[in-house]
Amino acid sequence: MPKQELIEIPKPLDQLTATEIERKACIGKIMTYTLKSLSTTFVNKGFQWLLPVALSQSTDPLWPDPGASIEKRIEIDIYGKPVRTTASMIIHKLVAASTAYPKLFILSPNIRIEKAERAKTGKHVYEFTQLDFEVRDATSKDVFALVEEAISTLVKDLKREMKSELTTLCRCDTLKAPKTPFKTYDRVDLEAKYGADWEAGISQETTEPIWVTNIPREFYDFEDFKTGKWDNYDLFLPQFGEVLSGAKREFEYAKILKKIERDQVKKENYALILKMAKEGRLKPTAGGGIGMERLVGWIAGVKHIAETQPFPRVPGTVNEL
Amino acid sequence: MPKQELIEIPKPLDQLTATEIERKACIGKIMTYTLKSLSTTFVNKGFQWLLPVALSQSTDPLWPDPGASIEKRIEIDIYGKPVRTTASMIIHKLVAASTAYPKLFILSPNIRIEKAERAKTGKHVYEFTQLDFEVRDATSKDVFALVEEAISTLVKDLKREMKSELTTLCRCDTLKAPKTPFKTYDRVDLEAKYGADWEAGISQETTEPIWVTNIPREFYDFEDFKTGKWDNYDLFLPQFGEVLSGAKREFEYAKILKKIERDQVKKENYALILKMAKEGRLKPTAGGGIGMERLVGWIAGVKHIAETQPFPRVPGTVNEL
Repeated sequence: MPKQELIEIPKPLDQLTATEIERKACIGKIMTYTLKSLSTTFVNKGFQWLLPVALSQSTDPLWPDPGASIEKRIEIDIYGKPVRTTASMIIHKLVAASTAYPKLFILSPNIRIEKAERAKTGKHVYEFTQLDFEVRDATSKDVFALVEEAISTLVKDLKREMKSELTTLCRCDTLKAPKTPFKTYDRVDLEAKYGADWEAGISQETTEPIWVTNIPREFYDFEDFKTGKWDNYDLFLPQFGEVLSGAKREFEYAKILKKIERDQVKKENYALILKMAKEGRLKPTAGGGIGMERLVGWIAGVKHIAETQPFPRVPGTVNEL
Repeated sequence: MPKQELIEIPKPLDQLTATEIERKACIGKIMTYTLKSLSTTFVNKGFQWLLPVALSQSTDPLWPDPGASIEKRIEIDIYGKPVRTTASMIIHKLVAASTAYPKLFILSPNIRIEKAERAKTGKHVYEFTQLDFEVRDATSKDVFALVEEAISTLVKDLKREMKSELTTLCRCDTLKAPKTPFKTYDRVDLEAKYGADWEAGISQETTEPIWVTNIPREFYDFEDFKTGKWDNYDLFLPQFGEVLSGAKREFEYAKILKKIERDQVKKENYALILKMAKEGRLKPTAGGGIGMERLVGWIAGVKHIAETQPFPRVPGTVNEL
């Protein structure tokens, strides 16, 4: 993680100087290239491209989550019913992948009103977009292979086709196409080595993207009740930490119910997937979500991921646009 | 417009039968193809792909607008400031196209809480995604050519590559690649022919996409104060009506100010573009937004555009997902 005192809060578009606009345009071209490359990869592999939802009765509880720092959960009334802004489309993905869309991805804008104290971490914004995907009958290994290929292809192609932009951003020499397969670490071993703040420890030390598995968190990630091990994963990038979170998912009614009750999450917000699971209509899936701002932030070598946003969403700062 | 009594409200994913899921998957494949085709066309023409925003202090006033039916405008407080859910990114586009992104597009989810009485028009949903684009120094004619090429290429390619899906949807024979250039009508002439409800009149009668120009509406569309003519346009599709709205834009301070005051729109919500215009930093642009659900609804031949949504957003009906 970059030193906090060095990080400036990215300015809104209208306040940029001519030089800063040039840099912004460069980062914008890297974002365009990345969106094009990843969406093409997923479509070519047979994924269906779904459009996102903004307001739903049911959204991600984001709890329990070791990285959570939500200051406010937004709830609005429309047509006489309470709806929430999308924190992630995980519940939508489970239902969609179990029915009409066995392989799907969504460019999904997520709202997470992070505490203002996270303004200068360089890796938090209160609105971000994830390329959120889910695959019926897939394993963690399938997801690893898919993501590793997508990211290493992207970086290889970028280095060839976006030389001028990478040069402007001083990333021509330092950005390396990562070797596949990426290394995998168990969270238990990282905790033993780095202590409770293992996320910061490993992010600072690694120079390559790495997988971390077995992280206790939300009910929908698969947990082996016998061994206590979680079949889930984060992809960590140097400096920015977690750029992807994902898992093999729970699909059995008894386990989901038990975990929802254990976590003291509101059961009534998850009535639909409980019903589908009870009727055997929830299918085993695996997936994840790639944070576009962190991925492009890493590629472009920015200090704050809000630099990758045309309209920066820095925690605590609300601009007119 | 289809007869209202014939239209069923599209059901949520979890309530579909096996046959209905098959149909949903077919429409999903058409959506995927359409998103891939249009994003590729725009990227290949040098457009930058921006990610959307969900909450902003400033959004589209949607007023005055002959088609408006907004039941509720959503306002939320974050970090001590009021923000609104995105009705459209028009204001963001004007600033972005004037600074770092002279040619840009966004797949932008828009929230418009339409009155529940619009549930059965078949062409309204309370959340939709537009492919919203803007080009510095462009004219209406440039936009017409761009959109006509994008849509006719899309339909031509679809008819070749998605035969099986179009057959399932009974659109193999009836869907024709539209001839370019599309016909153009002045709204004044349509009013003379069809009266106040010219939108319904022309939508029912036309069998090809057509342009309608010169429509009095929001302050940001260009109006010639001498002739009273508006340099703006809608693209109408058979049955679904307006699938694209756009214009050459105002960029001069005195005109924008005068129109904002005339429309009695809250000036303080548009302080940033007024400031930029006053300083000569707002550039002349033209653009538009293509409603993805209506476009794909037309291609797939659905009765209700919510059929193109994995999670239907029918006015008045809030599903769990």
